[in-house]
Amino acid sequence: MSLVVIGSVAYDAIETPHGKRERTLGGACTYIALSASYFTKTSIVGVVGEDFAPEDRELLSGKGVDLEGLEQVPGKTFFWSGVYSADMNDRTTLQTDLNVFADFQPKLPPSYAKEPYLFLGNIQPTLQGDVQRQMKNVRFIGGDTMNYWITQTRDELLQTIKDWDFLLINDSEARMLANENNLRKAAAKILELGPNTLVIKRGEYGAMLVRKDTLFMVPGYLLEDVFDPTGAGDCFAGGFVGYLAERRFDLRNGNFDIHELHRAVIYGSVMGSFCCEQFGVERFRTLTRKEIDGRFEEFRRFTAF
Amino acid sequence: MSLVVIGSVAYDAIETPHGKRERTLGGACTYIALSASYFTKTSIVGVVGEDFAPEDRELLSGKGVDLEGLEQVPGKTFFWSGVYSADMNDRTTLQTDLNVFADFQPKLPPSYAKEPYLFLGNIQPTLQGDVQRQMKNVRFIGGDTMNYWITQTRDELLQTIKDWDFLLINDSEARMLANENNLRKAAAKILELGPNTLVIKRGEYGAMLVRKDTLFMVPGYLLEDVFDPTGAGDCFAGGFVGYLAERRFDLRNGNFDIHELHRAVIYGSVMGSFCCEQFGVERFRTLTRKEIDGRFEEFRRFTAF
Repeated sequence: MSLVVIGSVAYDAIETPHGKRERTLGGACTYIALSASYFTKTSIVGVVGEDFAPEDRELLSGKGVDLEGLEQVPGKTFFWSGVYSADMNDRTTLQTDLNVFADFQPKLPPSYAKEPYLFLGNIQPTLQGDVQRQMKNVRFIGGDTMNYWITQTRDELLQTIKDWDFLLINDSEARMLANENNLRKAAAKILELGPNTLVIKRGEYGAMLVRKDTLFMVPGYLLEDVFDPTGAGDCFAGGFVGYLAERRFDLRNGNFDIHELHRAVIYGSVMGSFCCEQFGVERFRTLTRKEIDGRFEEFRRFTAF
Repeated sequence: MSLVVIGSVAYDAIETPHGKRERTLGGACTYIALSASYFTKTSIVGVVGEDFAPEDRELLSGKGVDLEGLEQVPGKTFFWSGVYSADMNDRTTLQTDLNVFADFQPKLPPSYAKEPYLFLGNIQPTLQGDVQRQMKNVRFIGGDTMNYWITQTRDELLQTIKDWDFLLINDSEARMLANENNLRKAAAKILELGPNTLVIKRGEYGAMLVRKDTLFMVPGYLLEDVFDPTGAGDCFAGGFVGYLAERRFDLRNGNFDIHELHRAVIYGSVMGSFCCEQFGVERFRTLTRKEIDGRFEEFRRFTAF
């Protein structure tokens, strides 16, 4: 049983107040898979160019990530570069070269189609829809999106998420999708669009999970040093879905302990916090499950009253 | 045994996206006292002009607030007017008439000097220092300040807070006081300045409490409607100190259950959230302790995992 993750695999150039990297492995699918791999067997669907380095492939396969769905085609890998503000709350994109990602048509290997868990990273909603229709045996489907799809392909997006069990987005996307500034009201509106579970990431301020039967909120982990926030939201997603897959969680069955969903939000927060401690995916070279569970317990301590 | 609160008593003109009020009771001391009065006997020290309305006096005395220290002098009461942005995260001050508050010299009635709990609202640090030296029997002294005193009277402020048991400020003030953008590092620096307990308010994002022996964080209560955020931070302060006073908490003794401090942060958050539900102090006309304890339990539910 494994988790299938669809999304971008990329090279990033990143500059933060702590330094810069000219070319480092990135992309939503990469971060989600690395993060989820600490909890469950993960299989990815993505596309890279001829320049994709064997050592980057090895980083993923070394974590047990199934790369059968990672297509390699002529051309260059998706490239993104950006620079963060002094307080790291804003970032400016300097360059986006879609390269081989421009023609990405996710192809699900036949062996993936029977897997129970699917997470659709932020790509064109129609492509997300194509993938989810190929899955035959799902216990949950969830995904991410972004402001561009919310404004430019709203109808396709609404059509796609109708079949999702959960939607995982950030607070500004939630407000934009619901066309409502109050987050509680925005969440209630989004829960009418299909997903019965909404997870909202709030960056350094934490995260929340909203369903008709529960509201859960957690503050963000207070890091001594935020080296690089790139990928933190995707690592959150990986921790959230990874933990649910590890627990064999069935969002469609409905017969579950609601606190498992709350704990999944904590594991998401834990993974997002680790991601920020080093540049790009570097923290995942050394991170252990023991450290992850240790930080989960830290969350218990600093939220107990 | 009662809590002594020093600070401004004012009239406010407020405009938010939900409407406006031309003249409504306000001032830090007012909000702190109203909020604390649900937990403990509260005595205030402040000054008002001849225009101070009997019904506003009655609102306070009706909550059991001791007004012996509320001086009434010739002239007009402190007046402030401001307008909030559409998302209510920013506000613009339109007018500040200090009036009788310009010459405020807090005079502690002799009966107050033996009280165990003192909260110094945001006024000139030297005046805060004058008051705290008149207290003879304290179990805790804490207070608030603002960016103006941090930049304009830094030496006096540092001299004053040296003797405080806790400092209660917002996140931007904490960063400014410590001259450090990372909140965890800023908190550690502030704990070297005297107070062994630091409470940081983060507006809609919640609050945190930092000591060398504990870190506690709580997300903000998710309101359906924020009518008017004026006074929310002061109501937080009132709930925090009020609960500690109710529990006969002795911050100087050091022999206490650390979770009581965490619970005080929750009661602070609860009181801040109620404050936003109506304009100015209006929510306190109907608020009951039962509602307060009910929301405390809601905090338990939405943070449990």
